Amino acid sequence: MIDRYPWPDELDGALCVSFDFDGESPYLWRTRRDESDEIAELEQRRYGPRRGIYNILTMLAEVSVPATFFIPGWIAAHYREAVVEIAAAGHELALHGWCHEPPGALSDQEMRETLTRASGLLGDIAGAAPIGYRSPSFQMTLRGLEVLASVGLRYDSSMMGSDRPYLIGDLVEVPVDWTTDDAIFYRYTAGDVRPPVPAATVIESWAAEIKAAARLGTLVTLTMHPWMSGRPARVTELGRLLQEVRNSGHLWLGHISDLAEYHRSVPKASFTTIADSLGRPHD
Amino acid sequence: MIDRYPWPDELDGALCVSFDFDGESPYLWRTRRDESDEIAELEQRRYGPRRGIYNILTMLAEVSVPATFFIPGWIAAHYREAVVEIAAAGHELALHGWCHEPPGALSDQEMRETLTRASGLLGDIAGAAPIGYRSPSFQMTLRGLEVLASVGLRYDSSMMGSDRPYLIGDLVEVPVDWTTDDAIFYRYTAGDVRPPVPAATVIESWAAEIKAAARLGTLVTLTMHPWMSGRPARVTELGRLLQEVRNSGHLWLGHISDLAEYHRSVPKASFTTIADSLGRPHD
Amino acid sequence: MIDRYPWPDELDGALCVSFDFDGESPYLWRTRRDESDEIAELEQRRYGPRRGIYNILTMLAEVSVPATFFIPGWIAAHYREAVVEIAAAGHELALHGWCHEPPGALSDQEMRETLTRASGLLGDIAGAAPIGYRSPSFQMTLRGLEVLASVGLRYDSSMMGSDRPYLIGDLVEVPVDWTTDDAIFYRYTAGDVRPPVPAATVIESWAAEIKAAARLGTLVTLTMHPWMSGRPARVTELGRLLQEVRNSGHLWLGHISDLAEYHRSVPKASFTTIADSLGRPHD
Amino acid sequence: MIDRYPWPDELDGALCVSFDFDGESPYLWRTRRDESDEIAELEQRRYGPRRGIYNILTMLAEVSVPATFFIPGWIAAHYREAVVEIAAAGHELALHGWCHEPPGALSDQEMRETLTRASGLLGDIAGAAPIGYRSPSFQMTLRGLEVLASVGLRYDSSMMGSDRPYLIGDLVEVPVDWTTDDAIFYRYTAGDVRPPVPAATVIESWAAEIKAAARLGTLVTLTMHPWMSGRPARVTELGRLLQEVRNSGHLWLGHISDLAEYHRSVPKASFTTIADSLGRPHD
Repeated sequence: MIDRYPWPDELDGALCVSFDFDGESPYLWRTRRDESDEIAELEQRRYGPRRGIYNILTMLAEVSVPATFFIPGWIAAHYREAVVEIAAAGHELALHGWCHEPPGALSDQEMRETLTRASGLLGDIAGAAPIGYRSPSFQMTLRGLEVLASVGLRYDSSMMGSDRPYLIGDLVEVPVDWTTDDAIFYRYTAGDVRPPVPAATVIESWAAEIKAAARLGTLVTLTMHPWMSGRPARVTELGRLLQEVRNSGHLWLGHISDLAEYHRSVPKASFTTIADSLGRPHD
Repeated sequence: MIDRYPWPDELDGALCVSFDFDGESPYLWRTRRDESDEIAELEQRRYGPRRGIYNILTMLAEVSVPATFFIPGWIAAHYREAVVEIAAAGHELALHGWCHEPPGALSDQEMRETLTRASGLLGDIAGAAPIGYRSPSFQMTLRGLEVLASVGLRYDSSMMGSDRPYLIGDLVEVPVDWTTDDAIFYRYTAGDVRPPVPAATVIESWAAEIKAAARLGTLVTLTMHPWMSGRPARVTELGRLLQEVRNSGHLWLGHISDLAEYHRSVPKASFTTIADSLGRPHD
Repeated sequence: MIDRYPWPDELDGALCVSFDFDGESPYLWRTRRDESDEIAELEQRRYGPRRGIYNILTMLAEVSVPATFFIPGWIAAHYREAVVEIAAAGHELALHGWCHEPPGALSDQEMRETLTRASGLLGDIAGAAPIGYRSPSFQMTLRGLEVLASVGLRYDSSMMGSDRPYLIGDLVEVPVDWTTDDAIFYRYTAGDVRPPVPAATVIESWAAEIKAAARLGTLVTLTMHPWMSGRPARVTELGRLLQEVRNSGHLWLGHISDLAEYHRSVPKASFTTIADSLGRPHD
Repeated sequence: MIDRYPWPDELDGALCVSFDFDGESPYLWRTRRDESDEIAELEQRRYGPRRGIYNILTMLAEVSVPATFFIPGWIAAHYREAVVEIAAAGHELALHGWCHEPPGALSDQEMRETLTRASGLLGDIAGAAPIGYRSPSFQMTLRGLEVLASVGLRYDSSMMGSDRPYLIGDLVEVPVDWTTDDAIFYRYTAGDVRPPVPAATVIESWAAEIKAAARLGTLVTLTMHPWMSGRPARVTELGRLLQEVRNSGHLWLGHISDLAEYHRSVPKASFTTIADSLGRPHD
């Protein structure tokens, strides 16, 4: 009934491990017109670039898992040393706006400028320009997709329309899923109405997602944030899960860029393509 | 103290497995006056008609469980191939508005038109006109019930006033329950305040509901959505539960239409009837 | 450091099992100025008087546990047969307003009238006037407490200022706790933002509360609602818990009225009393 | 990649057990312009000074764990006997405003006055002036930090920028974390949208945090409230956890003041320092 996707190396499915290394940038964007000198959430988010990112890099090295880091330009400018260390460890650097701006809040020209500016900085650190983008909060617009293509990007990883890569015009979409995003489980900042979910519960649920991906031949894209998933108990549980995946050997593990480029080489006849127009249909 | 309902085949209780195959239609209805070109939630919901529905059909075939699919006309028009496949597999097709409109938002005439239009399309695919209806979000009005009867429907499955079928005027109500609805556990779209509940937790809780139904002689109606319950980990857990129910043999399993028609044949004397007026009482 | 409360029969602690049999009355109060003909929540709540109350009475008989039912007059008027059955089974009937009105929404005179009217009806069914009150949603005002005393009531069971009975003026307060209230775990009506907690999780947590009460010598007052806790899986789990308590024999189990009257007989010297003024202090 | 912090006594990590003994003070602050005579939440919060604090002191004595109590002056004035007992048991008293005022709501002069007034009262009870502060709800401003230093305090324990002590100007910050705060899990007051998390779940999650702290060489600061964590089931579970930590012997356990003063003695070269400016950066 459903054809099976031909994953690389004839593996059962795929797991992309990715981090949105956003630190305080979403807060700075959100409060960009504030004059307040509140610093509680700033400090809370700085746990990421100060401590969490290093916990994560240590853990990734221990389990030998390559990851993709989506990094706002602002973070690369203010925490360049951490970003250099990410690149030096062999992980992929990709775009996440300049200061975590959602596509719908910018004109095309503004969006293009944030991407170009961040691309220059990340490319300078990594030695090659980034080819992928993830939008803040998984928001996306039709115009935003066009801007991404217009600046020469090869893939986007922000949408949820499938559980395997798919083509949207000239871009490959490597889909994500809220269920495998850490923020909706872990994020708690002052005034929120529900507490964080314990790490063991989240990781157990992700383990079930990963197991089901191997069974059904699909992709899981983990989306995480160093200021949340870099905390000790969480990074410990995450390392345990990745070690299991590494040991089991059933899933392809790699950079999102590699999966996106691979997808372009897959014969279209071998799996369902998505031909629908993406925008709001008119009935 | 409570008389026992005479379930078909002298079974202990009943389980109706149902899906609201709504895809992007609730979003289109909700944003029908928007001009935005945001596509994140559209893509998220399209997982249902693109992928989730096929995962579900495969699973239902594996466990040999007949289900009822409530399908907005808009979905049948835009994803006819999927709906043809549902009908071909022997599942029941039933009404869910044209584009997921809640009864309270329509005039009687408008509601009648959405139902007639959707009925024509679903009847064309199934070979026979649908005889049942489920309202979006389990909302219902007194006028809405009258419209349902006026267009010749035989049953509604949207309300929670009992745990076994009951008569409301000329309609049979096959009741539902929020506790066995997947959306309140699984749905997460941008901006929501709580994360999805892990599939294992939801299915374990449904297993307890089903076990209690056999003990107390009641009905469980599972209400699910392909863009949520069709995701790999969830459909895997759901299949496991349905296999258990199938194996245990304690519950009647079948189309809601069959249970509704059966109820008309049960002697009234053998179980409590509901004679109350349904509307707001005046004290 | 803390003196131990002298529970009846030299038991370790106490458990009061209580039900707020409110059915559709809170909805009628909340929407008393609506003209809508929506019936979804009305039907959902009617599960209580139609089905849940009988599941609960059956279960209580099985485990031989006496309970206290707080019943709005409106419910006794519209579902008299169910209330007769409650009284006939030996459970206590107590006041819960006429139509679930919170004290702060009424003038003293209005509150007095709702209580008097409901007391007449419940007294007629039980053969003796009720002597206790529970406020809707555990809200309370200083004036409300005075009204309760002025109509001759002996106890209130709505507040959380201790974990054993305490005196407030002429009233005994038999305290409750949100943690052992079913509604905040189980209630889900359309539009709510979080799903119900599984019955097994709730009951396991209540079991821990009860165990700790025996250890620390305190009181647990379970507050439940037939339209929620009367559902099959929940009433099954609740029955299991009450059977365990009954078997263990460590806790006093009985009507709240009996505990309140007992408290008046306890020598003050044997436990801490609360002498603080209750209202907002002026510093 | 990350240097290890040199914890006292060459231990693996550290655990600071702390309580914000706020009772009804946050409610009084929040409703300071109300004229209502509602008393439900007042009574709910009074469980802390009436009962919870004594349950906690008993438990801490049983497990021999020294703790730090942040106490609004208003509480010390109204429940002096309880505060005397805390000090007599050898626990640290520290500042928490006069009536739970957040720094951002006060002028510098007002904040200074609340601190000075509360310091006088707590110092009188403890025999020495308090040297530390925790802000209500973990809120903080740049100006607030300056006020804390200006009144001679030595440490703050309100922010989340690391998982070990760090210097902010002349203050030592002993960081906290929402994940190890009881309020976001346990607090439920009328109208909240999600129920309290069971004690066993919270304590199990804290046990994982503590275990990870030993593994990664970090600090856990538990932040708790007597009106919540002093309830029987919760204090029982907490005692079990602290007994385990005490038995395992891996973590330094002590007053926050001692850890803060110790930090000043650690050679800077041996661990990462935080040199960033704390306020909103200008890009």
